[in-house]
Amino acid sequence: MNEMILKQLEHRTIREFQDKKLPQDVFNILLEVGRRTASSTGMQACSILRVTDQQKKQVIAEICNQDYIARIPELMIFIVDQYRNTQILKGKNGDPEGSNDMDRFFAAYTDACLTAQNMVNAAEALDLGTVYLGSILNDSERVCELLALPELTFPVLGLGIGYPNQEPGLKPRMDMKLRVFENEYHEFDHYMEEIKDYDEVMQNYYDLRDTSRRVDSFSNQVVARMSACTPKRKRMLTVVRKQGFDLDI
Amino acid sequence: MNEMILKQLEHRTIREFQDKKLPQDVFNILLEVGRRTASSTGMQACSILRVTDQQKKQVIAEICNQDYIARIPELMIFIVDQYRNTQILKGKNGDPEGSNDMDRFFAAYTDACLTAQNMVNAAEALDLGTVYLGSILNDSERVCELLALPELTFPVLGLGIGYPNQEPGLKPRMDMKLRVFENEYHEFDHYMEEIKDYDEVMQNYYDLRDTSRRVDSFSNQVVARMSACTPKRKRMLTVVRKQGFDLDI
Repeated sequence: MNEMILKQLEHRTIREFQDKKLPQDVFNILLEVGRRTASSTGMQACSILRVTDQQKKQVIAEICNQDYIARIPELMIFIVDQYRNTQILKGKNGDPEGSNDMDRFFAAYTDACLTAQNMVNAAEALDLGTVYLGSILNDSERVCELLALPELTFPVLGLGIGYPNQEPGLKPRMDMKLRVFENEYHEFDHYMEEIKDYDEVMQNYYDLRDTSRRVDSFSNQVVARMSACTPKRKRMLTVVRKQGFDLDI
Repeated sequence: MNEMILKQLEHRTIREFQDKKLPQDVFNILLEVGRRTASSTGMQACSILRVTDQQKKQVIAEICNQDYIARIPELMIFIVDQYRNTQILKGKNGDPEGSNDMDRFFAAYTDACLTAQNMVNAAEALDLGTVYLGSILNDSERVCELLALPELTFPVLGLGIGYPNQEPGLKPRMDMKLRVFENEYHEFDHYMEEIKDYDEVMQNYYDLRDTSRRVDSFSNQVVARMSACTPKRKRMLTVVRKQGFDLDI
């Protein structure tokens, strides 16, 4: 099989890295891949904040509530960025009225995600390890302050890259028939029945990877996750609005 | 240089495909890559709607306002899917109260984008061509109806895949210094000055690709895009709410 696809099928999240920086030329290649990513209507409405300041890394680790983040060799935050194009629009004496609507926000949000995944694929092609940090949204307002994000920008997700220092097992995924549908959404009659085998597989996975970790089925994880309320995360749109976007609802 | 990265650096959007279906095993590999994509807290909260029904493809082409979409060999819509996990939660007698908050929405939205880009990378590794269809959001409500999307789901973006039948030029990107910042966002004093060279390069690009197409600088494109108001797109959150999510603002 194609070598790249083999790597994609072997994807694991890496949370512990060797104490070794990425060579500048390697990092530059990753950025170049990021820059070449498809972008909504070619507007390139996302940006990357590279976090090298150790104190800022520490703050991000606190926001994410995960110590290892402060030790990630290369840490980046991908952001919605409609600030830049709005400045260009103003420079052309255009009407900035529409530049803060939610269409712009979501187009840029999508751009940011696609760019991050493209860079993850490039990193993994080079046998680097990666970790996504969705947990930066635990406090998006603080991330905005920390990185001096201007109006019409917003943090989407973090990404850590480095040389792996662990070999986690391949995390099982739920059955394809639950995730892919043809022509219309298919609702199952009995989800607990459909998820039964996966629940079992998942328990074994955790068991094998780390015996000190609580073994839990997927459905129990769903219960735990869905019950974990993160007040600032669920009210994310208030920060989006504070950053200047017009929610228009 | 690494072969995969070379392909990533050569990324182009392909809009015209050979009249040839993807072999089933190739398509299955792409789906398997999609399934293996990193997912927020492992929840796998996105799904793929494969559109094979020609009438539905036609409707999507209408929504996107682009005829070629009806001719795309393999057309998929990536969706936010918190319906499935909410059904699992209910099956475990869990409290579904938090399952419709915007934290879940954005986590799933991100999952959907990462999955799409991972599949794009796999497709390009196999020399297939791809096109993203952000324009499905021209009328997200109609997409929901067309694909019978239940509550707590929402369409994020479309993706077309096939064997390329065109060789577009490599689209120039704006300078890296405008897109990547260290530790804090950098605001430039004169964006028109910063974008000047890129404006010129962009005009030449369009000129070479298709002489019948209007030559336009990047900054003029920004003006055109930002002025193009798409009422249903900017009011996307009303459809998100209609699909059962609690905007909580």
